[in-house]
Amino acid sequence: MVKIPDSHPRKKSLLSRQMIVEGSDRGLLADSAMIAHGRGEAFDYLLGERTTESAESAIREAAARLRSANNPVISVNGNTVLLAGKKALRLAAFLGCPIEVNLYYRTPERISGLLSLLEEQRILVLEESEPSGFEGDWRESVRNVTLLGSSPDFRIEGLEGPRSHCTEEGIGNADSILVPLEDGDRCEALVNLGKEVIVVDLNPLSRSAKMATVTIVDEVSRAFEGMLADLFANPNRVPTEWDNASALRDSLVEIAEFLSES
Amino acid sequence: MVKIPDSHPRKKSLLSRQMIVEGSDRGLLADSAMIAHGRGEAFDYLLGERTTESAESAIREAAARLRSANNPVISVNGNTVLLAGKKALRLAAFLGCPIEVNLYYRTPERISGLLSLLEEQRILVLEESEPSGFEGDWRESVRNVTLLGSSPDFRIEGLEGPRSHCTEEGIGNADSILVPLEDGDRCEALVNLGKEVIVVDLNPLSRSAKMATVTIVDEVSRAFEGMLADLFANPNRVPTEWDNASALRDSLVEIAEFLSES
Repeated sequence: MVKIPDSHPRKKSLLSRQMIVEGSDRGLLADSAMIAHGRGEAFDYLLGERTTESAESAIREAAARLRSANNPVISVNGNTVLLAGKKALRLAAFLGCPIEVNLYYRTPERISGLLSLLEEQRILVLEESEPSGFEGDWRESVRNVTLLGSSPDFRIEGLEGPRSHCTEEGIGNADSILVPLEDGDRCEALVNLGKEVIVVDLNPLSRSAKMATVTIVDEVSRAFEGMLADLFANPNRVPTEWDNASALRDSLVEIAEFLSES
Repeated sequence: MVKIPDSHPRKKSLLSRQMIVEGSDRGLLADSAMIAHGRGEAFDYLLGERTTESAESAIREAAARLRSANNPVISVNGNTVLLAGKKALRLAAFLGCPIEVNLYYRTPERISGLLSLLEEQRILVLEESEPSGFEGDWRESVRNVTLLGSSPDFRIEGLEGPRSHCTEEGIGNADSILVPLEDGDRCEALVNLGKEVIVVDLNPLSRSAKMATVTIVDEVSRAFEGMLADLFANPNRVPTEWDNASALRDSLVEIAEFLSES
């Protein structure tokens, strides 16, 4: 790994890129994953590589909705595990929900590789100091996060082929799904099943962004960090009437403002 | 290769992506090339995947300047050869200039692989019907395009390591360089040598875009196509006083307009 100096103004972005390149070298990602990451880099650049105001609202709404759900689940793909796997584990520990590895281009090798990586990340989370403000046994909650995905026994209605497979215990039974970096077709199919779908997507014009119940237009690691911070600080926040189309328009305005200031 | 239906609204973009994935599988690209392509996809999306008015002006200016130059050269990297190698050959045939394969992450294997691919593309260009309006022997001109890059014997001042290497016959002696998808540092070094640098870059905020003499904010294949069309239609066009900063601002306005209409 090339060492990036601390002073580099885009250090975080370059570190994320390295994580994706290394994950690809380790066979954890589909061919298209690096291209998808590059698209994300470009959109993040246009947001100023920061969590915008409209994204902060969406993060708060997402945190409240996941906390209020009966059966939330966090669905992760390769890029999410590489960029924010530890944060996904902390979120799942807080929410008491499972994490499901669910890939659009599913292969048994990549699923098991990503589940192994999540187990390594769980050990790292357990080695960290306990967050303050958690009611209950934090380490026990981290240990109890169920990691799903190796034995799909359920199909998402309205989709065909491997991309329709999931587990009943996870996505199948969920009433609320946090699914970063999702494909548009699958997002639509999940919404059509009556599920609440919370998407993290840097492109406010993507089909996923438009289909989701709540869209967080932010980089996945920052979005998870923001949700964790809000859950710990405001554990009793309740969902609002959420106008997702209006929130997406706000994010377009924020990009346009960034462009006009450049 | 997966067959993309003709009716798909983003067919061209998906075909380009396939070309990049296949080139990567064949070892013709550095790790970061797919990520760079993804960034390009995102910016092109924001341009509406079309040549904007400001890009058309830049294309005309670039064509006039290359035609007026004493020693023009076309510097290509892996993504350019994969996406627009045949068009680069036609441009070079029209201008009577060499093409130099010049890589930021240079390896002898990738240089020779890309030179071989250009030779294959030359055969395809020779099999096509002759363009009308060319003064001279078109096929002879295509056959005469010199392909450089395998034996770098010159260094770009102000750069260190392999990225500084180039050929004297090509970039070293050139007064005008068409260099799509260039790195910011190298663009700056070439400008500092007093050369005219014409960049094709989908990100109007990139350092290359800001450093270049003329920046074409467009997808490389469309930009080359536009230059070819203008050279054949207006062979006597002359360079103007070109305000590149103003042209870049125009392209930002075009993106902002696209966003506000979405």
